[in-house]
Amino acid sequence: MTPATVSPPARNLLGPGPSNVPPSVTEAMQRPQLGHLDPAYLGIMDEIQAMLREVFITENEVTFPVSGTGSAGMEFCLVNLIEPGDEVVIGVNGYFGGRLADIAARSGAKVTTVESDWGDIIRPEQIATALETVKPKLVAIVHAETSTGVLTPVEEISRLAHEAGALMVLDTVTSLGGCPVRIDDWQIDAAYSASQKCLGSACGVAPVTLSPRAMETVAKRRTPVQSFYLDVNLLQKYWAGSPRAYHHTAPILMNYALHEALRLVLKEGLEARWARHEANHRALAAGLAEQGLELGTPEAIRLWQLNPVRVPEGVDEAAVRLALLNEHNLEVGPGLGPYQGKVWRIGLMGYSSSEENVDRVLAALKALL
Amino acid sequence: MTPATVSPPARNLLGPGPSNVPPSVTEAMQRPQLGHLDPAYLGIMDEIQAMLREVFITENEVTFPVSGTGSAGMEFCLVNLIEPGDEVVIGVNGYFGGRLADIAARSGAKVTTVESDWGDIIRPEQIATALETVKPKLVAIVHAETSTGVLTPVEEISRLAHEAGALMVLDTVTSLGGCPVRIDDWQIDAAYSASQKCLGSACGVAPVTLSPRAMETVAKRRTPVQSFYLDVNLLQKYWAGSPRAYHHTAPILMNYALHEALRLVLKEGLEARWARHEANHRALAAGLAEQGLELGTPEAIRLWQLNPVRVPEGVDEAAVRLALLNEHNLEVGPGLGPYQGKVWRIGLMGYSSSEENVDRVLAALKALL
Repeated sequence: MTPATVSPPARNLLGPGPSNVPPSVTEAMQRPQLGHLDPAYLGIMDEIQAMLREVFITENEVTFPVSGTGSAGMEFCLVNLIEPGDEVVIGVNGYFGGRLADIAARSGAKVTTVESDWGDIIRPEQIATALETVKPKLVAIVHAETSTGVLTPVEEISRLAHEAGALMVLDTVTSLGGCPVRIDDWQIDAAYSASQKCLGSACGVAPVTLSPRAMETVAKRRTPVQSFYLDVNLLQKYWAGSPRAYHHTAPILMNYALHEALRLVLKEGLEARWARHEANHRALAAGLAEQGLELGTPEAIRLWQLNPVRVPEGVDEAAVRLALLNEHNLEVGPGLGPYQGKVWRIGLMGYSSSEENVDRVLAALKALL
Repeated sequence: MTPATVSPPARNLLGPGPSNVPPSVTEAMQRPQLGHLDPAYLGIMDEIQAMLREVFITENEVTFPVSGTGSAGMEFCLVNLIEPGDEVVIGVNGYFGGRLADIAARSGAKVTTVESDWGDIIRPEQIATALETVKPKLVAIVHAETSTGVLTPVEEISRLAHEAGALMVLDTVTSLGGCPVRIDDWQIDAAYSASQKCLGSACGVAPVTLSPRAMETVAKRRTPVQSFYLDVNLLQKYWAGSPRAYHHTAPILMNYALHEALRLVLKEGLEARWARHEANHRALAAGLAEQGLELGTPEAIRLWQLNPVRVPEGVDEAAVRLALLNEHNLEVGPGLGPYQGKVWRIGLMGYSSSEENVDRVLAALKALL
C-alpha cells in the first residue's frame, strides 16, 4: 500500500530550530527548478553570495551555502583547514562544542579542549592558558550554544588566537540573523551557519564564509581535503569560477528559499532584526518570571533566540512538552546531555520570533503548569 | 540594493538532471515544516524508508536519504566502508567512475582502477583480471554513466566481487527509477542515488542503501568514519533508532518532496515507469535517426534516460545548446571531458521523460540544424 501524500500539522515552531518558514520563502520554492548551470541560476547564485556577505558583515570572497545542513557547514570549515596531525584548540561549553571536537578528531587533528560547565561561556583566560602549552593551527568556539542558551563573546578570544598565529573558527548556527555577528570586525577566519534558524529559511543548506587568511591555509595544504563533497577548492570554482565548473547538482529550490530568506533579512535590516529578537526574548523572560519560571542562564550571557527554562520541581518535563505539542500545537525543545529532563528550550528564531508566539507559549505554559 | 525575489524561467529540463519536478512534488514542499523529531515527521520518515526499499527492490534495513546531493551519497558509501590502507577496485568508464576513484583515494584507500574508453562499459573480464592481483575490500562501478549514456550490466561483476570476498558498491544516480535496479537480486552491498533525476524529486537528497554484509563491515571498523555528517552509525540511529537520536536537522521540506516523488514512482509502478523511459528513448532515437543524427553509444549498451547525440561535422555545439535554451526553453547538457564539444546530452528522466518532450526536442533540433 502506497502511503497517502504528507499532511503535516501546522505547528508553531518554538524549539531549537527549525523555525517557521515565512510564506514568501515557501512560495519561492514553488518556482520552476532550473539546471544547476543555467545562466539564470548562476545569476541567482551571485545574488545569494552578495546577500550572504551582507548578513555575515564580511568582504570575504569565499562566502556561499554548502549543500547540506548546519553540521555539514561545521564539517566544511574543519576538513578544509585541518590536515592530519594538526593541533587545534576547541572550546566546549555545551553539545555543539563537543561536536566540533569530534569532527576535528575525525579530520585527523590533535584536539585540545577548553571546557566550561554547561550554561557557562568560554572565557578568554581559558583560551590564553591553553595557548601557553599548545601552538594550534586553529581555535574554534561556538558563538551561541543552542544546547544551553549561552552567548560567548568572541572578540578577545579571536585576538588571542591570532596572537598565537592560529586561525579563528566560529559556529554561528544559532546566532546569525538573530544577534550581532561581525565576521570581519571580529577577524573570524571561518564561520558556518544554518538556514533554518534565525535566517528563517527551510532546513537544508549551510552558509559558510572563509577569510583570505583561511584560503591561504587551504592553498598551502600538503594533503587533499578528505571530503570531495566539502572541498572548498572545487566548491568555489562552482560558485565563482570563470567559467563556473560543475561540482555537484545544487539543491536549486533550497537555494531559491535561502535567496528569499536573505532578502527578508536585509529588507528588515540586521539591526532591526537583532532588536526584534532581543525585544521578544525580554518579553518572554518577563512573562516567565511573572509565572515564577526561571531561565537557566545568568542575564549577562543570555542568548535572545534560545531560552532554557528550568523545569520546576516535581513537574514532568516530557509530559508538559508533549502537551504543548499536542494540545497547543507548540514545539519547544527538550534538554540535551546534562540538561535532559531539566529544561525546556524555547526558541524565538527568525519568523518564529514574534510577540504572538511569546504570548502563545506563555499562555500555554500557564494553562499546563 | 536588495535583489528582487527570484523569477526563474520555466524550462523543459532535458539535460543530465535535474529533471522537471511534478506539480504535486512542489506542492508537498509548501506544507508546514515540522521539527526534525516531531512524531508526525518520524512517521513520514518511516514511510520514506519503506518506499525507498520498494524502489531499490531491497529488504535492506539501512535505507534512507542522505541530507545532501548524489555526490554526498557516493561519499557516504565510500567513507563508511573504507579505512585507511584498504584496497579497492573502481571501474572507470566516464566522469563519475573517476569521481568514485577520487573519493576512495581521499578516504585513504589504495585504489586500483579498471578503465574502459568513454562510451564503453566495464566488462566482467576486466574486473576478473584486476582481482587476480588485488584482494580488495570493495569493487565499485557506475551503473548508468551520465557522462556517456552507457549502462554497464552489474550481475556478473557483482558475482566476481563476492567470489573474491569483496563488497559490491553501485552508483545508481541516473539508473534508479528509470531502468531496472535490483539491489537484492544483484547482491549489491552499497548503493546511492539522487533525488532529481529519474525519481523526479527536487535536487538535494541522496537515497542510499547498505546490505547487512556492508553493515557488518562497518561494525568491524578499527577507525572512526572520517565524516561525522555521513557516519551511518549516527544516521541510522536518527532514521530508525529507538528512541530516535538527534544527529542533524533534516531537510524537512526536501524529504516531503522525496516522499511525494516516491509515491508517484510506486503509483506508476516500477515496470511501467521503466517501460515509459524505454519507449520515450526509442522514440527519440528513431526521430534523431530520421534527421540523420546519431547517438554516441552502440544500441546494446544504451541508457534510456541519457542520450549522447553526436554533434554533426561543422556544427557549433555550444551555439546550438544555447539556442535550444534561449529560443526553445529546452535545457540539454554539454559533453564532459573527452566528449566536450562533441555531444549534446539529452536526458529523458522522471517527469521529463514524456512524448511531448521527445517531440519538442526533435522539432527544436530540426529548426536549428
